[in-house]
Amino acid sequence: MVIEPLDEVLMANAEFYSCFEARSLDRMSEVWEHSDFIRCTHPGWPTLKGWGAVSASFYNLFQAQAGLHFLLLDTEVRLEANVALVFCTENIVSQRPGPLVSSLNIFCLDSIEYRWRLISHQASISSESFG
Amino acid sequence: MVIEPLDEVLMANAEFYSCFEARSLDRMSEVWEHSDFIRCTHPGWPTLKGWGAVSASFYNLFQAQAGLHFLLLDTEVRLEANVALVFCTENIVSQRPGPLVSSLNIFCLDSIEYRWRLISHQASISSESFG
Repeated sequence: MVIEPLDEVLMANAEFYSCFEARSLDRMSEVWEHSDFIRCTHPGWPTLKGWGAVSASFYNLFQAQAGLHFLLLDTEVRLEANVALVFCTENIVSQRPGPLVSSLNIFCLDSIEYRWRLISHQASISSESFG
Repeated sequence: MVIEPLDEVLMANAEFYSCFEARSLDRMSEVWEHSDFIRCTHPGWPTLKGWGAVSASFYNLFQAQAGLHFLLLDTEVRLEANVALVFCTENIVSQRPGPLVSSLNIFCLDSIEYRWRLISHQASISSESFG
């Protein structure tokens, strides 16, 4: 069975949210490119730059008592050469209905390992609550 | 004089903010790719999709009485083949100091016209006020 690049990107994107929900820093570490160039903008946070700052942010988020659950709506991918833009709307559910968040995840194909690595995650709150 | 791709991208990014400040829909129209795939997330707005919705949003923003002025901080570009990611922090100044906004502008090289066209603008408020 041949897995198309689009499916590989969708799997990489699903893995990002899966390890967010599982609060696994080890798996999250596999998702991202480990470089000084990556960026991560959690809702309401300043943009973090580089794997050191990004991994520290997930370490802190994963300490929270209540886990997060992501319902993804409207996931769409645009592939341009070795770059994949994944646009989706996150409905973040915690102990109560959460905000709707517009998210853009950018993956870059690591041509040596042939792995799509996350190089940017930007999440913007677009409404206060889904409920 | 040879203009490097990095400089072309920086000029395209500067033009985006320049026509925002000038409130010129004609010039803004030249900046963007005219397709159904483009995305635009103004701070606090849901993500708009396609040139029709995106142009309508700029038409409405340009009707506002007070013009906006953008002071850009920390502009950085990542070039990957025909895709350019421009990360910057917008200090939006209107009649009083405005919020700091983390912005990601993505340009794609139109290989026929050899023009960098904006395909995604996402702006996230990261602090309420610079002042």
